[in-house]
Amino acid sequence: MEFMTGVKEKETLELSELLEEGRLGEEVKVNGAVHTIRDMGTVAFVILRKREGLVQCVYEEGVTKFNLKDLREAATVEVTGKLTESEKAPNGIEIRLSEIKVLSMPKDSLPLAVSKWKLNTSLEAKLNYRSISLRNVRERAKFKIQEGIVRGFREFLYKEGFTEIHTPKIGAKGAEGGSNLFRLDYFHRPAVLEQSPQLYKQMMVGVFDRVFETGPVFRAEKHNTKRHLNEYTSLDFEMGYIDSFEDIMAMETGFLQYTMELLKKDYAKELKILDVTLPDVSKIPAIRFDEAKQKVSEKYGRKIRNPFDLEPEEEHLIGQYAKEEWDSDFVFVTYYPSKKRPFYAMDDPQDEKFTLSFDLLFRGLEITTGGQRIHDYDMLMEKLAKRGMTEEGLETYLDTFKHGMPPHGGLGIGMERLTMQLLGEDNVRETTLFPRDLSRLTP
Amino acid sequence: MEFMTGVKEKETLELSELLEEGRLGEEVKVNGAVHTIRDMGTVAFVILRKREGLVQCVYEEGVTKFNLKDLREAATVEVTGKLTESEKAPNGIEIRLSEIKVLSMPKDSLPLAVSKWKLNTSLEAKLNYRSISLRNVRERAKFKIQEGIVRGFREFLYKEGFTEIHTPKIGAKGAEGGSNLFRLDYFHRPAVLEQSPQLYKQMMVGVFDRVFETGPVFRAEKHNTKRHLNEYTSLDFEMGYIDSFEDIMAMETGFLQYTMELLKKDYAKELKILDVTLPDVSKIPAIRFDEAKQKVSEKYGRKIRNPFDLEPEEEHLIGQYAKEEWDSDFVFVTYYPSKKRPFYAMDDPQDEKFTLSFDLLFRGLEITTGGQRIHDYDMLMEKLAKRGMTEEGLETYLDTFKHGMPPHGGLGIGMERLTMQLLGEDNVRETTLFPRDLSRLTP
Repeated sequence: MEFMTGVKEKETLELSELLEEGRLGEEVKVNGAVHTIRDMGTVAFVILRKREGLVQCVYEEGVTKFNLKDLREAATVEVTGKLTESEKAPNGIEIRLSEIKVLSMPKDSLPLAVSKWKLNTSLEAKLNYRSISLRNVRERAKFKIQEGIVRGFREFLYKEGFTEIHTPKIGAKGAEGGSNLFRLDYFHRPAVLEQSPQLYKQMMVGVFDRVFETGPVFRAEKHNTKRHLNEYTSLDFEMGYIDSFEDIMAMETGFLQYTMELLKKDYAKELKILDVTLPDVSKIPAIRFDEAKQKVSEKYGRKIRNPFDLEPEEEHLIGQYAKEEWDSDFVFVTYYPSKKRPFYAMDDPQDEKFTLSFDLLFRGLEITTGGQRIHDYDMLMEKLAKRGMTEEGLETYLDTFKHGMPPHGGLGIGMERLTMQLLGEDNVRETTLFPRDLSRLTP
Repeated sequence: MEFMTGVKEKETLELSELLEEGRLGEEVKVNGAVHTIRDMGTVAFVILRKREGLVQCVYEEGVTKFNLKDLREAATVEVTGKLTESEKAPNGIEIRLSEIKVLSMPKDSLPLAVSKWKLNTSLEAKLNYRSISLRNVRERAKFKIQEGIVRGFREFLYKEGFTEIHTPKIGAKGAEGGSNLFRLDYFHRPAVLEQSPQLYKQMMVGVFDRVFETGPVFRAEKHNTKRHLNEYTSLDFEMGYIDSFEDIMAMETGFLQYTMELLKKDYAKELKILDVTLPDVSKIPAIRFDEAKQKVSEKYGRKIRNPFDLEPEEEHLIGQYAKEEWDSDFVFVTYYPSKKRPFYAMDDPQDEKFTLSFDLLFRGLEITTGGQRIHDYDMLMEKLAKRGMTEEGLETYLDTFKHGMPPHGGLGIGMERLTMQLLGEDNVRETTLFPRDLSRLTP
């Protein structure tokens, strides 16, 4: 019997500890994966990959008590040596090795040259060898930045009085309805995977006023494009006591402002690795859907084919328009047509063909859909009837509105898409850890 | 066209703002849901429910410009009035109403008396009317504390150098294997819902050294007990470069210490509402599986029926033993039998019938399973073969180990169970927002 008393002190040092003042000249112990070995004869440079970055180690024949032939790339090791200054090494330091202890040896050579600065391979190969390709420092950095986005979302919303919730992903009915549902057998009852936490977060507005969730959503869409996934992480919030749907856009703007600052502060290293310039989010223009279509048609000579829908190319042009006219990478497009929005969307009392809703475009791609929801029971039942929908599977959701709900609205942000646009990638799979699409179910 | 420039300043005040120094005597505007109305004739107390707590408002006939008959419980309102001191009111303040503006009116009366201090109804009713029952201040507080637990988990692990990941929930093969899998059709291919992010987080240890995820997991178990759910939120982490599996237990102890401090600091209000005393986690005893069985058998006169399994009653007794012997609510039970652990568990080199693994019991209930994993490719293939398992669906996972993986291990914590034990609830559904079990698929 023994007692656990908290995190164990480690003898081995992390990169940030090596960089602490006063460490130079010390004998240090460091572990890591062998990223690359540059053998110069009697001297060799062994670069270790650690979570915070690369560490250069210098092997010297006769000095380092180890036979270099027994080391290979992708081995994991614990090394001991003297920490010294080195202008040319990453972070300006290197370790002059006295000892190398091998923790594990690879069985095969790597299928990808992960130690290259740019991983020069196809997207297919990157995804097929996901656990290897992400060992590349640039590939890995994308997902650190993605962490920062999600962290920013949560930290900002906590600060704004939101409560985090965890809603079920297996349900009886999808929030958006339609055919884009994955179906499964739930102990001999038909069930679906939720397309969105929509109905749950609305119900929780009556409890916590403001709620958010970061979790997976599932869409059985048969699209096979560069911007669609069949499973993605949705950053959702819903807030009560709004004066108008502008409150929601204002909150999203606040989230973006907070998150860009957080990235600048805590993810500067990764931004530099990927050479990312953060967009200015001090003010984001908002333009009506119909007006945006009109403006784009006029400026770029594109005919309006369907006044009630935005084609991907039109979205792209609205992005271009926002950049040219207001020097903004983001633009809110407001008052979407009712027929393109789900039953719970609040119609504009001024013109019921449109809704009190919006999309946020980032460099011409939709990354958010949001808006005000119907909070009146009778209005909700009317809308359901008009759409020919039944109450089945929605009973508790609908009942909630019989018992008093504040005016409210919210949004959902596609985490992978936001990351993709921020990093200037051209395929959402580049910023998805393990994508699920029409053809991809593994790894 | 207009610009969004960030979060909008609100005229209405939240409870913490009302309690700011210097506010007394001010004319204030507040919104909220009508929690209860106590009509005393010419005067009435209208209690508003807000996200931070209750606010007492005083209605006076002739003074308040509103007909009290037009107000009902569960209405949402925006009120104006003078903020005054009131010893007997919640938080020592009340608002003397001049105006009431109704934002929404309920259609029906509430099915549950949510304004009672203790919601005196069955678990079944609470779950059937989930969006209503959680409006009860005590019911709601449980999920604020749950938020604190998850927040503590993430904050602590960020601090310890872990990277947050988001892994897919639809996959080709379950991590634990067996029959407890929900199956679905994925574009005409057989797929499953993941029982755990296990295989993904291990693969990511080779990339980020330390990773964590908080997300849903799915178990098609046919148990219908007070402690089982078919979908729950798992708090998972995995860490590389460990010296032994004790590093993992030490990290979990650190998480518990951090989280108890966070709850004390930021969730004191909810702890008080639920009258929760936080457990002492300064040191947590660890005892071997076989020794624990022996000790419990001796002390409580219980015969050992199966030396390789723990029955729920034995778990309970080990909890009791830890409390009596070491005054601890927690106890790590170590070296679980190999046959009860999945293929990836590292066997104890001293005795291969046991593994380098552990469970953490909290007041006699398992809330965590963890341990060291096999990091050697050959050892992993050997174990698979011994279990008669095929490589199908595990290709990328297995390949990862050909290319160098550090010694590593991790754990999964059941969020709802940890909350349940912390709050002293006797059914895990009490601390699950929308439980999924054998009979419950809605709401």
